[in-house]
Amino acid sequence: MTTRTVEDLLNIGQAARSAARQVARLSSGVKNQTLHNLASLLESDNEALLQANADDCAEARANGLSEAMIDRLLLTPDRLRGTAEEQRKVASLPDPVGEAMEMATLPNGMVAGRRRIPLGVIASIYESRPNVTVDIFGLCFKSGNSCILRGGKEALRSNSELVRLIRRALTGAGAPEGAVQFVDNPDRNLVDAMLKMRQYIDLVVPRGGEGLVRFVGENATMPAVTGGVGVCHTYVDRAADLDMAANVTLNAKVRRPTICNALDTLLVHSAVAADGLPRIAAGLAASGVELHCDSRALSILGPGAGINAQPAQEEDWGREFLSLTAAVKVVDTMDEALEHIETYGSGHSEAIITEDYSAAMRFLDEVDAAAVYVNASTQFTDGAQFGLGAEVGISTQKMHARGPMGLRELTSYKWVIMGNGQVRP
Amino acid sequence: MTTRTVEDLLNIGQAARSAARQVARLSSGVKNQTLHNLASLLESDNEALLQANADDCAEARANGLSEAMIDRLLLTPDRLRGTAEEQRKVASLPDPVGEAMEMATLPNGMVAGRRRIPLGVIASIYESRPNVTVDIFGLCFKSGNSCILRGGKEALRSNSELVRLIRRALTGAGAPEGAVQFVDNPDRNLVDAMLKMRQYIDLVVPRGGEGLVRFVGENATMPAVTGGVGVCHTYVDRAADLDMAANVTLNAKVRRPTICNALDTLLVHSAVAADGLPRIAAGLAASGVELHCDSRALSILGPGAGINAQPAQEEDWGREFLSLTAAVKVVDTMDEALEHIETYGSGHSEAIITEDYSAAMRFLDEVDAAAVYVNASTQFTDGAQFGLGAEVGISTQKMHARGPMGLRELTSYKWVIMGNGQVRP
Repeated sequence: MTTRTVEDLLNIGQAARSAARQVARLSSGVKNQTLHNLASLLESDNEALLQANADDCAEARANGLSEAMIDRLLLTPDRLRGTAEEQRKVASLPDPVGEAMEMATLPNGMVAGRRRIPLGVIASIYESRPNVTVDIFGLCFKSGNSCILRGGKEALRSNSELVRLIRRALTGAGAPEGAVQFVDNPDRNLVDAMLKMRQYIDLVVPRGGEGLVRFVGENATMPAVTGGVGVCHTYVDRAADLDMAANVTLNAKVRRPTICNALDTLLVHSAVAADGLPRIAAGLAASGVELHCDSRALSILGPGAGINAQPAQEEDWGREFLSLTAAVKVVDTMDEALEHIETYGSGHSEAIITEDYSAAMRFLDEVDAAAVYVNASTQFTDGAQFGLGAEVGISTQKMHARGPMGLRELTSYKWVIMGNGQVRP
Repeated sequence: MTTRTVEDLLNIGQAARSAARQVARLSSGVKNQTLHNLASLLESDNEALLQANADDCAEARANGLSEAMIDRLLLTPDRLRGTAEEQRKVASLPDPVGEAMEMATLPNGMVAGRRRIPLGVIASIYESRPNVTVDIFGLCFKSGNSCILRGGKEALRSNSELVRLIRRALTGAGAPEGAVQFVDNPDRNLVDAMLKMRQYIDLVVPRGGEGLVRFVGENATMPAVTGGVGVCHTYVDRAADLDMAANVTLNAKVRRPTICNALDTLLVHSAVAADGLPRIAAGLAASGVELHCDSRALSILGPGAGINAQPAQEEDWGREFLSLTAAVKVVDTMDEALEHIETYGSGHSEAIITEDYSAAMRFLDEVDAAAVYVNASTQFTDGAQFGLGAEVGISTQKMHARGPMGLRELTSYKWVIMGNGQVRP
């Protein structure tokens, strides 16, 4: 361990700040070479890493962690190949740094516009998955930022080895090793101290459960990405194609039920509930989904149809299930659906299924969320799916960036003005 | 007075939130008509306003406020014409709301992209100038936001009348009166309460001195625009055209010495100091500028040349003078200048005067500020000058928006996705 005290942490902050100045000016070539080096190391120089990971997993098992948790922790040669491929993909994305925006010659002859620049130092606090270490580094580095990583205590050995590989990749490409900083001490007090290091950290990105995200949001003195919590609704309108509704709803819930863009609450218009709800529910039930229904939905689905339907409790509305459970409610109007979404949604991903043009347009206009869908699965909310290549996370705030945050969303800009002696009248 | 308690303030917040939903969907036509109505009322229905302002000014005089303060408070028919013209100009600017960004058809046939939307509710806390009431309202409203205004206590009567005119302008155009909310109670405790109303306020914009800006930045629970404080340097490089240096420096300092983009510290390369500094200082001195010089600058400017040059104190570096005073320092290298700017600058506006291409490029690359200039006056940092039409303020932060904040900078976006049944593989 090298990080023992708050003073060590301040030194890490200072080193990250100092490296940030260098990283901001690296050529795309050096940055891409670093990511390619890292990909190769992950694939072909991973013995120490896999051993460290085996030790982490053994300790987790000894400590009684669930098999699901251990699976999140586990690295395999195959998973490392996937992580390496991600880095090659990030290398292939356009470099956002230096992009000139709205550059124009003003009437007085000055050339002025915005130039995209890195944010500086990005800190990330995350939980058990060690691949996040590589993912966050890759995106921060390609966008010209240095980063401070603080992973979960269960993955400490794995993360230490991953950071060692990242450092080798950096020096191998002639990039400053300081571009990655690692807090190799799971002491929670150091997280508190980190969140006060406003002078060294420009943005903090929490990656993990609702508790972590909320803690960071409430305690960070620097800007933080608020997000990652998705209470997602799909509203089946009276004018829905009910086969499409069944198909899209099924995908939104069961493709991956544990991610933030998965369906939580299904809202069905009363005009199509008697016909549509049993068809939708049949598919969900066949995939093992448990439905928490309001009284009208329950009376339609009834007992005995082989559907696991139970009465919803008040706390089911606005709940992020992250499992094979969904709430179901029948509404009488689109207004009621919109109001339910506004009351209970978390501003992440919301969808309407309809063939009615005006209903579709109104939903797009009025729903206030990072991603608003017509006739598609909310599971598409993802940086790669939206063409950003990759993402550090999904923002549900309105400032700076909303929705998936890719390379550009990790940048700022400055105005540059090139004159030849202009003075302001 | 209608705002008496924190509960009243919460009602104001709720009303602003509710109005925001309506304002977000107003047509450009209705918004522009409102601003034109307001401009006409300011010019031709201003008796009550001018009387209220006369009462404010009389009370300020009785309370012993300085003439400079009273001048900031004063409204005249001529000043109102200027404010009205500003509103007509904002009306003529393109409406940012609804702009589609990077909208594209994805490989699976979904049409997806970002749509620009208003932020929601913008609160502004400002000091004595009553015209800020109109300026902030106009920009927030045109960008589809509702606003909560809390002006200085000296301008309470004037601001109340202005808000009355704004409400008439709104209802006259068929827009919701609730789009403007006014805190008509100067109690400081209500400001504290306002800064905690995160559920109702999406962004707070402080407009005023350093103390106010810092207070809001430190106490707001919602995002705040950090900025308005400008410690601005102009660096005269060894390769500068010295006539240009004298001319640009003079403009940067004396055109308007009391604004945030005015020059505070002049840095001069030692290779040209003996020749250049007296020429630059002569112009400044002729305009009444007092120079606080480091020892080398002082020895060059010497006594007896008719220049008001005094020894600089340590606190002169990094000081925002807002008056006819400037600090002067001789540096031996461009590195020294860059380091001085990094140490003492506030990230607002910084300039280099040089004919050396590499020095110019390096300055643009390495200086981390909202606006970085080559061979031009820092006084250009302004929304209208940069082609934004107008501004609510100048941000020195890196998140969300940097530099002048115009209409677009008061917006966010949401992803809209139009499918026909797509599910994610």
